[in-house]
Amino acid sequence: MLGYRFMGRAHSNAIARLPMFFPDAPEIERHTLIGRDKEALAEAADQFGFAQTATDWEAVVEEVDVFYNLGPNHLHAEPSIAALEAGTPVLCEKPLAPTLETAERMRDAASEAGVPAGCAFNYRFLPAIQYAKQLIANGDLGTIQHVRGRYLQDWLVDPEAPWAWRMDSELAGSGALGDLGAHTVDLARFLGGDQTGDIERVSGHLETFVDERPVYDDEEAIEEYRPVTVDDAYTAQAEFANGAVGSFEASRVATGHKNDHTIEIHGTEGSLKFSLERLNELKLLTGDNRGYETILVTDETDPYVDHWWPPGHTIGWEHSFVHENYEFLSAVADGTEFSPSFDDAYDVQVILDAIERADDIGQWVDVREQ
Amino acid sequence: MLGYRFMGRAHSNAIARLPMFFPDAPEIERHTLIGRDKEALAEAADQFGFAQTATDWEAVVEEVDVFYNLGPNHLHAEPSIAALEAGTPVLCEKPLAPTLETAERMRDAASEAGVPAGCAFNYRFLPAIQYAKQLIANGDLGTIQHVRGRYLQDWLVDPEAPWAWRMDSELAGSGALGDLGAHTVDLARFLGGDQTGDIERVSGHLETFVDERPVYDDEEAIEEYRPVTVDDAYTAQAEFANGAVGSFEASRVATGHKNDHTIEIHGTEGSLKFSLERLNELKLLTGDNRGYETILVTDETDPYVDHWWPPGHTIGWEHSFVHENYEFLSAVADGTEFSPSFDDAYDVQVILDAIERADDIGQWVDVREQ
Amino acid sequence: MLGYRFMGRAHSNAIARLPMFFPDAPEIERHTLIGRDKEALAEAADQFGFAQTATDWEAVVEEVDVFYNLGPNHLHAEPSIAALEAGTPVLCEKPLAPTLETAERMRDAASEAGVPAGCAFNYRFLPAIQYAKQLIANGDLGTIQHVRGRYLQDWLVDPEAPWAWRMDSELAGSGALGDLGAHTVDLARFLGGDQTGDIERVSGHLETFVDERPVYDDEEAIEEYRPVTVDDAYTAQAEFANGAVGSFEASRVATGHKNDHTIEIHGTEGSLKFSLERLNELKLLTGDNRGYETILVTDETDPYVDHWWPPGHTIGWEHSFVHENYEFLSAVADGTEFSPSFDDAYDVQVILDAIERADDIGQWVDVREQ
Amino acid sequence: MLGYRFMGRAHSNAIARLPMFFPDAPEIERHTLIGRDKEALAEAADQFGFAQTATDWEAVVEEVDVFYNLGPNHLHAEPSIAALEAGTPVLCEKPLAPTLETAERMRDAASEAGVPAGCAFNYRFLPAIQYAKQLIANGDLGTIQHVRGRYLQDWLVDPEAPWAWRMDSELAGSGALGDLGAHTVDLARFLGGDQTGDIERVSGHLETFVDERPVYDDEEAIEEYRPVTVDDAYTAQAEFANGAVGSFEASRVATGHKNDHTIEIHGTEGSLKFSLERLNELKLLTGDNRGYETILVTDETDPYVDHWWPPGHTIGWEHSFVHENYEFLSAVADGTEFSPSFDDAYDVQVILDAIERADDIGQWVDVREQ
Repeated sequence: MLGYRFMGRAHSNAIARLPMFFPDAPEIERHTLIGRDKEALAEAADQFGFAQTATDWEAVVEEVDVFYNLGPNHLHAEPSIAALEAGTPVLCEKPLAPTLETAERMRDAASEAGVPAGCAFNYRFLPAIQYAKQLIANGDLGTIQHVRGRYLQDWLVDPEAPWAWRMDSELAGSGALGDLGAHTVDLARFLGGDQTGDIERVSGHLETFVDERPVYDDEEAIEEYRPVTVDDAYTAQAEFANGAVGSFEASRVATGHKNDHTIEIHGTEGSLKFSLERLNELKLLTGDNRGYETILVTDETDPYVDHWWPPGHTIGWEHSFVHENYEFLSAVADGTEFSPSFDDAYDVQVILDAIERADDIGQWVDVREQ
Repeated sequence: MLGYRFMGRAHSNAIARLPMFFPDAPEIERHTLIGRDKEALAEAADQFGFAQTATDWEAVVEEVDVFYNLGPNHLHAEPSIAALEAGTPVLCEKPLAPTLETAERMRDAASEAGVPAGCAFNYRFLPAIQYAKQLIANGDLGTIQHVRGRYLQDWLVDPEAPWAWRMDSELAGSGALGDLGAHTVDLARFLGGDQTGDIERVSGHLETFVDERPVYDDEEAIEEYRPVTVDDAYTAQAEFANGAVGSFEASRVATGHKNDHTIEIHGTEGSLKFSLERLNELKLLTGDNRGYETILVTDETDPYVDHWWPPGHTIGWEHSFVHENYEFLSAVADGTEFSPSFDDAYDVQVILDAIERADDIGQWVDVREQ
Repeated sequence: MLGYRFMGRAHSNAIARLPMFFPDAPEIERHTLIGRDKEALAEAADQFGFAQTATDWEAVVEEVDVFYNLGPNHLHAEPSIAALEAGTPVLCEKPLAPTLETAERMRDAASEAGVPAGCAFNYRFLPAIQYAKQLIANGDLGTIQHVRGRYLQDWLVDPEAPWAWRMDSELAGSGALGDLGAHTVDLARFLGGDQTGDIERVSGHLETFVDERPVYDDEEAIEEYRPVTVDDAYTAQAEFANGAVGSFEASRVATGHKNDHTIEIHGTEGSLKFSLERLNELKLLTGDNRGYETILVTDETDPYVDHWWPPGHTIGWEHSFVHENYEFLSAVADGTEFSPSFDDAYDVQVILDAIERADDIGQWVDVREQ
Repeated sequence: MLGYRFMGRAHSNAIARLPMFFPDAPEIERHTLIGRDKEALAEAADQFGFAQTATDWEAVVEEVDVFYNLGPNHLHAEPSIAALEAGTPVLCEKPLAPTLETAERMRDAASEAGVPAGCAFNYRFLPAIQYAKQLIANGDLGTIQHVRGRYLQDWLVDPEAPWAWRMDSELAGSGALGDLGAHTVDLARFLGGDQTGDIERVSGHLETFVDERPVYDDEEAIEEYRPVTVDDAYTAQAEFANGAVGSFEASRVATGHKNDHTIEIHGTEGSLKFSLERLNELKLLTGDNRGYETILVTDETDPYVDHWWPPGHTIGWEHSFVHENYEFLSAVADGTEFSPSFDDAYDVQVILDAIERADDIGQWVDVREQ
């Protein structure tokens, strides 16, 4: 596993929880944790239950049975491609890569390797989202005409919030668009599925409100200011193959919103709404109902829920990683396909790239034309 | 007063209620109700408290002290202009006109007349909106960075819902854009005010999901199908003068939403949300608060509320018309300015027109370039 | 009409609005407004549209066709009984009287008079409540097992809030119990109907948090303190004839709640919730639904709504009075029965009285034993 | 650890998660899992990570360093007392015992043992509850005047839902009262603390809607009906030492509510609301605010949150057990006190017992008189 911060912790936890709750998951040994800072790495390995550490990924990706790439975006490509070339299945954090060209190389490597190569769009694996997916696929919402997605956070609203790699276009690719919008576009595609077909045309708007941010030293004094070269916020309009109207938005400066990923879908027969801050709930309108039902998606019959607790005993954000790891590792063990694959992630990236180009040229962009 | 259906009723009711609740409003005589169908007109005049009826507006607009134009959009221009040329103040329903060119003629007529010419953007006059406006103008939200508005209805989700003049581009101009989007753009401009400056650039997307709709005869059998030549839904992206990011949307096919006009604004110091379906409430985040407060805007100190009932005794949609009529008729009586004026309404129309053009050409449009 | 303050205004407004929205309502002349302070009375009569005023009710109640008693609770009995003895129909504000004995006299007078005698429990006439009533009566909720009602306000949370007649047991009877609890008990009985049968046993708890309150002079200086001899809050437990469990509560010191009258009912087949602060909505769970639907009760098919506006155009608190006056005045004109009658109001009072006695003796009280 | 079903799983999981998220927690070896059904026990031990199993608790409670008693209520006393007599710290599920007399013996045993004896009122350990506790203790809500708690579930609304030990008064003590009401009373006392003082008087109402329930055989055919000898629902009124008014309720037949434990508190300076189905949130009104803030209690500065994920990344129901185990095991390791102790749990039981007696005799009961 490469990466031992936020995502390293989320996936290590997920793996550690499988035996108790998913007894049919393959047995997993947490083998080697990869990072650069030896001291921090050793501490993390100890805490996350890894037997070994390494500061160099090159040998590791050949040796292990599965490679997790949870590093910053600009480190997604080389180690993942090397792993795939060695026939090692890969689970890589999203977005796939800072540039479309790099994402394409990763997709091609996965295609040639013929082993599972997954991209960690974890929100697909929430019970409410899986349930929504089933309803839409069953046609319970009729013909989908509106897909609306927004992902609001506010951790950058303070102009003195510290600079980080996520604000650099070389390291991160884009800002809110790639970090948050990738999730939204993936969910929109996943939920819409065959009902909407894919996104065909987009218009884009990227905005950076704070052009440079401070780097702090150990005494929390400002050492220097570094430029912010990615977007703080984006909006996009979209048209799906079936004619459905899409609108997407994300922000890191939406005061008062911490992790508010909201998806709203309207069809001719029904509608639904989901918000990540209340991830156990689905607002659903179907059939002859007059208003949205507020459904607590915690019944035994709900996706994944029978592995956990009785009705009404809610799960948290991290459970999406447990489900994702269960599916990914089972796919590796069984030699079956895992979705979202690098193919899916590349398709997301094509759309993100089209949004950026649309913003650049001030025109709608046909997603398939590059 | 021209028009005796939905809007005729709303304004007649508003006027009738002034004496009891706004004793300082000018005394109003409901003089002449204008329409084409004599029988329906006579009945409406009786019910709405009008002394006379007329099927021809031409004489009336000169005779009366104030002319209300509440007819379909394509009837806004000629009677309003004639009234203004006769020096009669006009209150006209929104949007101002089906085309920008006509709207411009109306604005010019108002400018020359020098009497109050108001456009009935009634939502400005809700206590929660007035209160929000004060907070934003006071700087309580800091620098505004996001303005999000959407207006969702579902009365056209059934493809067999009957054809009406609102679906014809000649008579209505546009569909969801002009009918619903006009309100959103007006509120966005009103609330943003000097803090955001005006909308400068837009991108647009108009979509018609049902291309023709039935006309029913008296036995509710389908007589014929007529083409729908306006949008069922639109989305727009916008950039304000201060750099704030706007996103707007409306639909008449958003299953489960009846009259859901939602405005959300994020600033560097706070955020707010308003929804017309809960029009007595404002969700507000300011100062050191951590989450949105749900405020019932029904205190004596809230705008207009002291005219009504004690705290917690909510008002309805129609009260916005009472406040609007109070302000408009007071302006006429006092010879002061009324806002939203034809000028404001023209500026809204410029933006709506730009959204349509942006959709046509598939490009962002600079609002001031025509 | 006796009383020209809050309730005088609410009923005058309701009467004034009938012709435009309920054209089949009987024609009403606002005849005489009764009060003690001549100057204030004259002003109110002018504003409320009354032709005459009187400071003495005795002659008036014989002369008029209908008598509205909207004065303080201790003035409910004598004028109402006199009117009924003169054969004049009466609409009286709630609660019927400060004491059960007086309420009984009023009920008996109504019974002998044989003309409509109504008690103004206006919340029965909200569309959402009428709709809920239909659903329960239809058995859509199955066997009712829980009825929960609470009415929270906070206008007395400040210990320096001024003394008023509503805080004196002689003038008002009780405090939160009679003023707010009367509404709750009436709605519980109305909604439960034959499904629950009546309330049979109660336990009570009345509490006064502030024992005396200031009387202010014209310069807003404190003249004196007067004792508060009624409850600031009450709770009650109840058992219905069918075994359903009831729990009721009201407070005037529930910080942050302005007019929060909430009713929640659980049956074997469904549940519902209503809150007065969102009076256009009903939360409803029936059939195979998993969660509560949030229904905007503003469709044409909803009770009373076809008289007003299109779907999603909400009404306010005052509209309950329009519906109530429509029903009452129609009953008077048609010689039919009106409900809630003095009989109903007396039955409510029996329960309120039992709650007070239960509090006094610290025991459950059988409602029918006095 | 005695018990390997719902609670066994919840605590095993909690213990397993400590090393990764609470690195300063003592190291724990999951030693022996105790149960009767050898096969099920072996499987559970394997899944929960226990090294050994035992069908007899007697030897085990002396051997281990800490004893978890997670069995049915009637098995709480003997093993816990035996453990305490052997000087083994005990964590016991709630309610402490089926009868007050037994609870008293447990409390006394704990008192004599002088080792930590905790009762697993896990909801105390939710971040939102801890945060609420701090605010109340700081006086941010002023003088507390109302405490309202209700715990609604619906798993017994179907009369054919299977009989279980929780429906037998010998095995469980009481029904909704002991199972759900125990949590409510504990939270009310915990949150009220010194601000309210303890509950002094109560009135009670217990109701059983379904008198017998089926026992099913392996083919899901009904073998027999067994009597339900506990309450399906209870309500209680309460008076706190400071005069605050309490009202409590729980039900297992509240259709549509899965695990809806709601606490509402009103003070002279503020109010708060918490619902277990949205356990990451606190609705809070303090200071000059006008309405309730909806606070996502997921900031780094919130109790326990720094151990988990960044702001907005919500936790689930099970996390309350992790925090509880962290505190309990730390107290054992450090030799400090743990709260809620057997003392606290006994005090809760005294109140539950008083509610039952109050129901029996139809009178308010002074909690301290037995």
